[in-house]
Amino acid sequence: MEEVNGTVVHEAHLVAVEAPSEVETLELGGSGSLERRSFDPVAHELDATFRLTKYADLKGNGCKIPQEDIAKLLKGIQDNPQDHVQLEGGVGCIGMDACISPLRYEGFCAVQTVDLFYPLVDDPYIQGKIACAGVLSSLYAMGVTECDNMLMLMGVSTKLTDKERDVVVPLIMRGFKNTAMEAGTNVRGGQTVLNPWLTVGGVASSICQSPEVIMPESALPGDVLVLTKPLGTHVAVTVHQWSDLPDRWNRIKLVISQDEVRKAYNRAMDSMSRLNRTAATLMHKYGAHAATDVGGFGLLGHAQNLARNQKAEVSFVIHNLPVIARMTAVSKACGTTFPILQGLSAETSGGLLICLPREQAAAFCKEIEKSEGYQAWIVGIVEKGNRTARVIDKPRVIEVPAKEKEGELW
Amino acid sequence: MEEVNGTVVHEAHLVAVEAPSEVETLELGGSGSLERRSFDPVAHELDATFRLTKYADLKGNGCKIPQEDIAKLLKGIQDNPQDHVQLEGGVGCIGMDACISPLRYEGFCAVQTVDLFYPLVDDPYIQGKIACAGVLSSLYAMGVTECDNMLMLMGVSTKLTDKERDVVVPLIMRGFKNTAMEAGTNVRGGQTVLNPWLTVGGVASSICQSPEVIMPESALPGDVLVLTKPLGTHVAVTVHQWSDLPDRWNRIKLVISQDEVRKAYNRAMDSMSRLNRTAATLMHKYGAHAATDVGGFGLLGHAQNLARNQKAEVSFVIHNLPVIARMTAVSKACGTTFPILQGLSAETSGGLLICLPREQAAAFCKEIEKSEGYQAWIVGIVEKGNRTARVIDKPRVIEVPAKEKEGELW
Repeated sequence: MEEVNGTVVHEAHLVAVEAPSEVETLELGGSGSLERRSFDPVAHELDATFRLTKYADLKGNGCKIPQEDIAKLLKGIQDNPQDHVQLEGGVGCIGMDACISPLRYEGFCAVQTVDLFYPLVDDPYIQGKIACAGVLSSLYAMGVTECDNMLMLMGVSTKLTDKERDVVVPLIMRGFKNTAMEAGTNVRGGQTVLNPWLTVGGVASSICQSPEVIMPESALPGDVLVLTKPLGTHVAVTVHQWSDLPDRWNRIKLVISQDEVRKAYNRAMDSMSRLNRTAATLMHKYGAHAATDVGGFGLLGHAQNLARNQKAEVSFVIHNLPVIARMTAVSKACGTTFPILQGLSAETSGGLLICLPREQAAAFCKEIEKSEGYQAWIVGIVEKGNRTARVIDKPRVIEVPAKEKEGELW
Repeated sequence: MEEVNGTVVHEAHLVAVEAPSEVETLELGGSGSLERRSFDPVAHELDATFRLTKYADLKGNGCKIPQEDIAKLLKGIQDNPQDHVQLEGGVGCIGMDACISPLRYEGFCAVQTVDLFYPLVDDPYIQGKIACAGVLSSLYAMGVTECDNMLMLMGVSTKLTDKERDVVVPLIMRGFKNTAMEAGTNVRGGQTVLNPWLTVGGVASSICQSPEVIMPESALPGDVLVLTKPLGTHVAVTVHQWSDLPDRWNRIKLVISQDEVRKAYNRAMDSMSRLNRTAATLMHKYGAHAATDVGGFGLLGHAQNLARNQKAEVSFVIHNLPVIARMTAVSKACGTTFPILQGLSAETSGGLLICLPREQAAAFCKEIEKSEGYQAWIVGIVEKGNRTARVIDKPRVIEVPAKEKEGELW
């Protein structure tokens, strides 16, 4: 990682000089190596068939509860679920990313978000990182770059044996914590409960002064839409599970090789673990008008939520879909399973979808690539309209290279 | 409720002038009545045998994960689980009630807590109230009386039918929200996920200046211990479930009548739904030295955690156990099921256990009773020692009257 800002580099340094804890050492390479090996259940004295993703019937943050059902359930706390902007002196987060609470001290507000994830990768450490990055992403979507505290929420599956639990849970927690440190924050509390399905998530809180927050409501006709991470994460983790299952594998073996699956899975893990913090910083520099983070409702679902929240009469039109390599081919071979060309395939810890002034978008993309080594893409435009969003009929698919190796700098 | 402070009365007034929402009306009495009926599944077109408590195999916040196992799991985020007081620039909440984060603004800190509960009563609205009061209790234990925001965490059971879900979840949310309003705060966000077991909980956050917080660490020899709610909540809700189960009922029918069970259950619901906010306010007025809230580890478990956290070399000795009427008799009839005389029976949304200067304790108890109409009890003393806590061999049991009617002022 190149230098992004002082804090990130500082924390990376702290991690490097700290001795790796007991729970981390098995995945480290030889002494002094910063390369990380993938999780091997056998090395932890677990059964070779142990798969974290078997400990929940749902995956990531997809398919939790459909948006329309949520609205129905929320009638217990809201008389009008559409009225999310002014929810009793503050901004509620129904359908949006974070909530904002006015504080008792003039000029300050609390920006907070909570999210929970089912396991979607088999490496517990990476799963912890993804959950932390996913929680923080909602702060970053509001332009908030400084998180003051994180709480971790761990739902331990009752189906784990004691041995499995004692291996897996500390690794998840360590991944979560390390990503929090990378974000310049700390995990100071949390709650661990038992439940048949494994979940991991948390709460991110930032106490801000107004200029730190970019309210997701000021998109203007003529803006362009930028996306900071590729689509296709759920497709990639799902086909990776299918490589163990002959029935499923036969459905897709004509369009993708095992090696391509592995690389796509590595890209997805890398992408989901990555913070959107640089993007949040650059949103201020380039005068972003609004943003949201892409998650379980897919690019289009979140674009629609964001469009609905705009003050001006605008609509979003999405022309380009950056997708992890080969995932569009898989999606086409699977009928309606992965509606990625419709913009509706679920993502976890996805990119920020940002409305930027047209003249700033290219510079934004260029700087994020220079800072982080990751591309961002112009995916669409903002035009006059009735606060809706759509993907055009034949969107252009941008194939985003998959990733050779899983290893990362520690 | 008598006047406690301006905020509570103000909010109660707000609730009274608001029309009851659709989800509340079935439990209200005749028009204009402020009496509330208990939850009747049939009135909601659910099966007469519907019981909320069947939707999790655990109850309340008892037995989540034993304290010693938690320490093992937390090695992922802590190198020394004992070292909870100074966890990377802030106070962690492992074993304690809330965590404190320093903020980027001089003189301010964030006090936060998160908690999750399995259903332990069959009235969804009351269950929501209990969860909210239980979450807030950890702030109150730190002397923090003003909560700036709450997030709600709803784990919807996959075993609920759509109809059951649409009845039960809004009622739980409404109960949670109403108790938040009673506490002078709002629910501005949250997360709803699916999981086989139902859970409800939330996050409470307060942005404070130092004088608002009473660190739980300054108990002195000579202090006395005050408890603000009776023990026996889990015994009461469990025997209430047993009145449906002949096998279980036969174990206790010689020591308790159905009517006594009903009254104990009503007292437990009332007690668990009640806020510890007045107690937190009075902790400041009477110079409390430390406090904790009683939950799943029982009075003694939480007393031990609190003792371990003291700066001075003190120990806590508990002489008196205020227990909901007849619950000690039930406990004796059930062998080791409810270790209430050992101080180890789990509680949910229990009272605050407060270390007060000896000369202030009686006045504290008197004022809390005058303000709220609820008793508080002197239960023990602080003496020189090695930061442990114990219940004496034959503690005095104070029978706390059960409650005739379930109804409450709305």
